[in-house]
Amino acid sequence: MIGVFDSGFGGLTVLGALTERLPHHDFLYLADNARAPYGARSPEVVYQFTLEAVEWLFDQGCPLVVLACNTASARALRTIQQRHIPHHRPDRRVLGVVRPSVEALAGLPPGAIPGTTKPSLVEGLVAVLGTETTISSDSFGIELRKLAPRLRLVQQACPLWVPLVEAGELDGIGTEWFLHRYLDPLMQAVERPRRILLGCTHYPLLLAGIQRIVGSEIEILAQGGLVADRLADWLNRHPEMDARLGRQGQHNYATTDDPNWFSTSAQRLLGQKVTAKQVQLGNHEKGQWE
Amino acid sequence: MIGVFDSGFGGLTVLGALTERLPHHDFLYLADNARAPYGARSPEVVYQFTLEAVEWLFDQGCPLVVLACNTASARALRTIQQRHIPHHRPDRRVLGVVRPSVEALAGLPPGAIPGTTKPSLVEGLVAVLGTETTISSDSFGIELRKLAPRLRLVQQACPLWVPLVEAGELDGIGTEWFLHRYLDPLMQAVERPRRILLGCTHYPLLLAGIQRIVGSEIEILAQGGLVADRLADWLNRHPEMDARLGRQGQHNYATTDDPNWFSTSAQRLLGQKVTAKQVQLGNHEKGQWE
Repeated sequence: MIGVFDSGFGGLTVLGALTERLPHHDFLYLADNARAPYGARSPEVVYQFTLEAVEWLFDQGCPLVVLACNTASARALRTIQQRHIPHHRPDRRVLGVVRPSVEALAGLPPGAIPGTTKPSLVEGLVAVLGTETTISSDSFGIELRKLAPRLRLVQQACPLWVPLVEAGELDGIGTEWFLHRYLDPLMQAVERPRRILLGCTHYPLLLAGIQRIVGSEIEILAQGGLVADRLADWLNRHPEMDARLGRQGQHNYATTDDPNWFSTSAQRLLGQKVTAKQVQLGNHEKGQWE
Repeated sequence: MIGVFDSGFGGLTVLGALTERLPHHDFLYLADNARAPYGARSPEVVYQFTLEAVEWLFDQGCPLVVLACNTASARALRTIQQRHIPHHRPDRRVLGVVRPSVEALAGLPPGAIPGTTKPSLVEGLVAVLGTETTISSDSFGIELRKLAPRLRLVQQACPLWVPLVEAGELDGIGTEWFLHRYLDPLMQAVERPRRILLGCTHYPLLLAGIQRIVGSEIEILAQGGLVADRLADWLNRHPEMDARLGRQGQHNYATTDDPNWFSTSAQRLLGQKVTAKQVQLGNHEKGQWE
């Protein structure tokens, strides 16, 4: 079973792409709706909440967890991978969405080994849009400088886009104004970006409006498909992990808030029947994990 | 020490009015920033989070707690008052902001005893604006029907106003559009409300724009002052409680997220020095309170 974690509903856009690309694998999606959104919280709080979610997914029998949340990937993944996993869960793996996104942004094909295969885009300007916490972490910048040091990156925080999506305000004059608010600085600059990455899983729901403003010359990358392609490739290169994952095509859902409300919203987004169960995170005694 | 609880920063508008009205009393303000905002969460989650906050304030030595959060007052106060306090904390009191707001909406002066003093407004239409969870609870409607059964109430949820305030978007075309989005249904109706209550502690920060749209003929009530007047009156009528409250004029602050970030934001809102400390809620073992 592959665990997929997001603070809320946004990660369902990634889950949808994953289940399409890996239709026989089992998935368990966990949404921390009771404490969402994570995008404006401090790094320490994001780390603590993400670790609780990852540990819960491990406990349910997931040897592999994908953080489908950019804020969690940007703020918690590295510490979990480098400090928590080696000491406490050496047989488990956690992957994020930042690294595959940056590879796609630089045009590195799935499966290519950085250093041997050259990214197709090595110069010029690209852009990432994300939440305040994601952008201020500079996670996309750190990864991109390793992969394509001469490719320049402009990063733009878009604080109101998640609330707009969660309020169902996908178009209209007010929404358009707040699309312009964060896109105009990119579009009115002397040099426009060649590619724009939507570095938040909610943003693809605003894609039509974003595309209208940036025009057809600039390529817009959403994360669902590119993360799915790269996870499939990662599993090919890690057959020992792939062998541990269930293959009955089962999809399960858990939320920290009301499961009926979650199921109704998730069904609308995914277009298929969802029956979620409610779980509690953060009620473990201190010291259980450390 | 009087405990004042809000999910985030909004309750500081109430705290400011309380400390001005009761300058010699000690206050402890608790903000659950790590899990804010509460406005779209399920009633069960709001109840659980609020109970954790109230119990923490009791443990710090507050015999009296004010829920300065409308969502918490609407969704958790009654159950805490009727089920939790009598069995577990019979010597403590928790008050909310819904009841005093409804008294002010109906024009009942502070200290008046419902049933003996008549509200000044007994007929016509009034309005409440609030978060989705507050409005769908119908808490303002339930209280108002008890107090002034012939006064009619229209309730309007304004889901984007809290995110707009938290993003610092207090004016501009986008904000104005979303002010109109929720106010136009009231202003374009056949009968306009005579008074509008801002039933969310964030909304006073949008007051200038709201007033511009509704005009000067409609009275707008913000909660800070009216809650302060009614708490002062309540303490006069409950001298045994008032005697238990410290009077060194001390103001203390606690948050569940980063205390430096909280202090900076709170200082800007209150115009005075704030040094917050960080606390954890929700890590108690199950069964400790029930």
